[in-house]
Amino acid sequence: MTVVAPAVPGRGALRPLSLGDVRIGPGFWGSRQQLNGEVIIDHCRSWMERLGWIGNFRVASGAGRRGREFTDADVYKLVEAMCWESARTGRDDLGAAIASLGTLIAGAQEPDGYLNTRFGHQGLDARYRDLEWGHELYCAGHLLQAGVARLRTGAPPDDPLAATVVRAADHVCVAFGDGGNHGVDGHPVIETGLVELYRATGSERYLEQARRFVERRGRPALADIPFGRAYFQDDVPVRSAPAFRGHAVRALYLAAGVVDVAIETGDRELLEIVADQWQRTVAHRTYLTGGMGSRHEGESFGDDHELPPDRAYAETCAGVASVQLAWRLLLATGESRYADLIERTLHNVVATAVAPDGRAFFYTNPLQVRVPPSVPDPTEPSPRAAAGLRAPWYDVSCCPPNVARLLASLSAYVATTTSDGGVQLHQFMPGRVQAGPVVLEVSTDYPVSGRVVVRVDAGPAGPWRLDVRVPGWSDGLRLTVGEETWEATRGYASVERAWRPGDGLVVDLPVRPRWTYPSPQVDAVRGCAAVERGPIVYCAESPAAESTEDLSLLSVDDSAEPTDRAGSVYVDSRSGGVELIPYHRWGNRGPATMRVWLPLATARRP
Amino acid sequence: MTVVAPAVPGRGALRPLSLGDVRIGPGFWGSRQQLNGEVIIDHCRSWMERLGWIGNFRVASGAGRRGREFTDADVYKLVEAMCWESARTGRDDLGAAIASLGTLIAGAQEPDGYLNTRFGHQGLDARYRDLEWGHELYCAGHLLQAGVARLRTGAPPDDPLAATVVRAADHVCVAFGDGGNHGVDGHPVIETGLVELYRATGSERYLEQARRFVERRGRPALADIPFGRAYFQDDVPVRSAPAFRGHAVRALYLAAGVVDVAIETGDRELLEIVADQWQRTVAHRTYLTGGMGSRHEGESFGDDHELPPDRAYAETCAGVASVQLAWRLLLATGESRYADLIERTLHNVVATAVAPDGRAFFYTNPLQVRVPPSVPDPTEPSPRAAAGLRAPWYDVSCCPPNVARLLASLSAYVATTTSDGGVQLHQFMPGRVQAGPVVLEVSTDYPVSGRVVVRVDAGPAGPWRLDVRVPGWSDGLRLTVGEETWEATRGYASVERAWRPGDGLVVDLPVRPRWTYPSPQVDAVRGCAAVERGPIVYCAESPAAESTEDLSLLSVDDSAEPTDRAGSVYVDSRSGGVELIPYHRWGNRGPATMRVWLPLATARRP
Repeated sequence: MTVVAPAVPGRGALRPLSLGDVRIGPGFWGSRQQLNGEVIIDHCRSWMERLGWIGNFRVASGAGRRGREFTDADVYKLVEAMCWESARTGRDDLGAAIASLGTLIAGAQEPDGYLNTRFGHQGLDARYRDLEWGHELYCAGHLLQAGVARLRTGAPPDDPLAATVVRAADHVCVAFGDGGNHGVDGHPVIETGLVELYRATGSERYLEQARRFVERRGRPALADIPFGRAYFQDDVPVRSAPAFRGHAVRALYLAAGVVDVAIETGDRELLEIVADQWQRTVAHRTYLTGGMGSRHEGESFGDDHELPPDRAYAETCAGVASVQLAWRLLLATGESRYADLIERTLHNVVATAVAPDGRAFFYTNPLQVRVPPSVPDPTEPSPRAAAGLRAPWYDVSCCPPNVARLLASLSAYVATTTSDGGVQLHQFMPGRVQAGPVVLEVSTDYPVSGRVVVRVDAGPAGPWRLDVRVPGWSDGLRLTVGEETWEATRGYASVERAWRPGDGLVVDLPVRPRWTYPSPQVDAVRGCAAVERGPIVYCAESPAAESTEDLSLLSVDDSAEPTDRAGSVYVDSRSGGVELIPYHRWGNRGPATMRVWLPLATARRP
Repeated sequence: MTVVAPAVPGRGALRPLSLGDVRIGPGFWGSRQQLNGEVIIDHCRSWMERLGWIGNFRVASGAGRRGREFTDADVYKLVEAMCWESARTGRDDLGAAIASLGTLIAGAQEPDGYLNTRFGHQGLDARYRDLEWGHELYCAGHLLQAGVARLRTGAPPDDPLAATVVRAADHVCVAFGDGGNHGVDGHPVIETGLVELYRATGSERYLEQARRFVERRGRPALADIPFGRAYFQDDVPVRSAPAFRGHAVRALYLAAGVVDVAIETGDRELLEIVADQWQRTVAHRTYLTGGMGSRHEGESFGDDHELPPDRAYAETCAGVASVQLAWRLLLATGESRYADLIERTLHNVVATAVAPDGRAFFYTNPLQVRVPPSVPDPTEPSPRAAAGLRAPWYDVSCCPPNVARLLASLSAYVATTTSDGGVQLHQFMPGRVQAGPVVLEVSTDYPVSGRVVVRVDAGPAGPWRLDVRVPGWSDGLRLTVGEETWEATRGYASVERAWRPGDGLVVDLPVRPRWTYPSPQVDAVRGCAAVERGPIVYCAESPAAESTEDLSLLSVDDSAEPTDRAGSVYVDSRSGGVELIPYHRWGNRGPATMRVWLPLATARRP
């Protein structure tokens, strides 16, 4: 049976559920899914229409093409988002829009399967002459992902987009097979696109081609550039790298493809290598928010412990890619640390990126802002990634459609099942989960409170196991089943029993605000502490209307616990109480200074 | 009488001396001047020959031109260095080499005065189509500076280079005058080149053209770019900027030109504006080393207090430019803070940039390195600015010839005179200073010790004033004249008397090592202290042969003063004494980790 979801591996510890089998009810994420369906997807589409990125597919000759060399990929991400949203809601208008875009895209394909509006046409540059920067296989990778979404969400057999995608993939296998070009693309994503298409079609040549791309990297396969080959993960072979490095989105997309290849080829060694790279990256190269990429230069990971809050690049797309990667590792291993990072990244990167009205987005997500940013022009795309406040669109606008496809498919990341019929609850969202014969109803206002009530509405006769993640940020959680209450401390709290309809499980998570201290090796935040509450990182924000200097001399007292009042958290400082707001709300009140890491009046020593 | 020096303003508080009137004897700077004359200049020339940058002037058609678009400027800086070195030493071979290069350069000039090997020739791009990035006026500015050096160091009346430079400047005045192109160059330096040529020739059209370029900036005059217009100081008019911002070398070259324009046009308001910008920049946007530019992205100044030691760009060229700017402000005002910054920058940026053998150079000068850098290929130019260790050459190799011209002209920065016949000693270097009728002999091994003995060998009859700078880093200094000893605390220590030959002045500077604490607003070094000794910043260095992890967990005790032994300084840490070496020696022992700011076991609170 087809699982309707992004990333459907053929093996692994956990099995994903279909989007339709998990419904996210009203709440923190339900409202964002609704905003995505009602606003964000249309917003993306109308900007891409206005700027000609969709129209580029109509211009057969390539003359008059508009936008940067990778805009095709943004159209494909939009189509992918529309596919998932259509499957989630069954909206008819989306089906028609997808079919229309699919026909348009199909019309731009060359007879041999090549498809790119920027290269290979009369009057434009020839194909594959600039693998470092041309983004042709990057665009193809996103095309494949859109095609997979189309196939999994019920494309008719003669669907033009599905057929186009298969032809495009076949072309890539010929052009970059053993008898063809032995290069790789400067921007990975083709790897995971090919493996997913293999999963969706069963055609092994796609898997083999993905494996080739993974193994070619770092021999090296690309020219040196001023950023260095680490920028596109071509400095050393995938198997030799100790951690993720270079351009963060490139590194994370590649790692996701490496996991996909490792899983489908049964290459356990490769899987362990990526898991080790992930572990070191999360331990030493990741922000408290889950943000990845600490350098503006090259939009890249820094060295271990190089985590400046003020210059955090922490691109929104890197957050999306990190969720996709962690999800693959979670499915492969069943280890809760991956779901922990997904939770952290969703609440503090993805949620932060989107304006409350769904019409503006952060590209970078710094943890400190010293000078109130300028207000982006609402009528023009921002020429800069660091637009200051959320901007409606960017000259390089990879992030908004990336968020759109993640939000549309978010229910895929909530729960899984195992071959023994067990069900695993990874994220705490209200709603309904169906996993085979099991039906769960989850009630919670998490992360506002920490109580999550899981009711079994249906299930098989006899005992089966229900696993609930114990977040890494908590000291543990309290579980109550019937009269019995106990503490669970790490990993997954398991309850195996013969559940009967109406049985309940109550989870109590300790979401009271808490101080978090950095590693002494992170020089940039020495002598500081941050405040978290549940999965939410907090920050101090100083709207420009008031003094903008106060945060630069802020000094807080951590001898008392932070207190919790009406959605804000308060800590003591020399000049009285300081209000902290959830980091994902920063910038909503206009230009402001902001900081997550708060200097301590008396620093605790390591 | 012609003053043979870079920057010879027509008015101001202080008057510069000719290179030939100040001889720097053996010692810290004497050895570096000698290295420059014997190695660095030849090293630069041979790389420029090998890479075709000099040969580009032979290729009349432009076909086969090699190197980046701005390499002409590096050849001009080399010529400038050779001119100053020739004047300093009287070396005959340099005179011939200058004449030969001058003839070569002259041969590449178009009939209308335009001179650039990258643009305006058959088969190449047209002139002035890309003011943002083309660097045509930037190259012209360095050409003018080379021509000024040639004129001031005794070019014959029919010298081809001098004539070429005048034609080039005339061309710029026509092409960019009121009736011509109203643009400016993306990379300033033409401004100061024009004013200096005005000073050297008396032709006011050059001054007027420089004034035009200064006033056009920021209206805006250039297109927007992803870095933003602040990158090339085109975001706001020069008179409206609160501090230096954007690309540091661009900002500092421009500011030097603005000072030149302000001085020669008598625009006191403009001079005060630049002085205020300088003050804010030095107070809030400058590293302890004097390094400027805290961002790799855009090689630019950061916001106030954004001074990460690990990602300090602190380009060597920005150090050279900062010396040139501070010197102009010092000549204009006579205020010691400018000489203070020159001393700091010379000892910690310029001295750091050059390898002991004079054959390798830092491009960036970070204050912390967490991962031992790779060893650059000694046979090829580095494709990257952050080469790790000092590299022999760079694809963008602006820094080595910039250091060469500064070292060759270094004696210009030591002392000045005033219209009343006073003499001011700004830098403490052993040697001889002649200022009109006054001849001083300075004996010192500064900065090894703090004793500086100044002997008056000649001077006018009657009283005249001798001023000695009291460095800002010191709590004061002790002056001894004959039997009399007293303390001077700030600015310049003045001794006015009827000096007789053989009279002496003894200066004792407190060069014992001292702790330096950062402003609490500089987040990146909170809870740290640095050690300085005299003008020298110290650092901890961990050669790769030993553990590379120790510096990441270093924690020092500042309850005792640092101690001084055999050229190193020692401080206490939990695991015993830690040796600190002068920052300018870091990287001399091969790949190593390094840090200037040392985490404190018990942080002092602001």
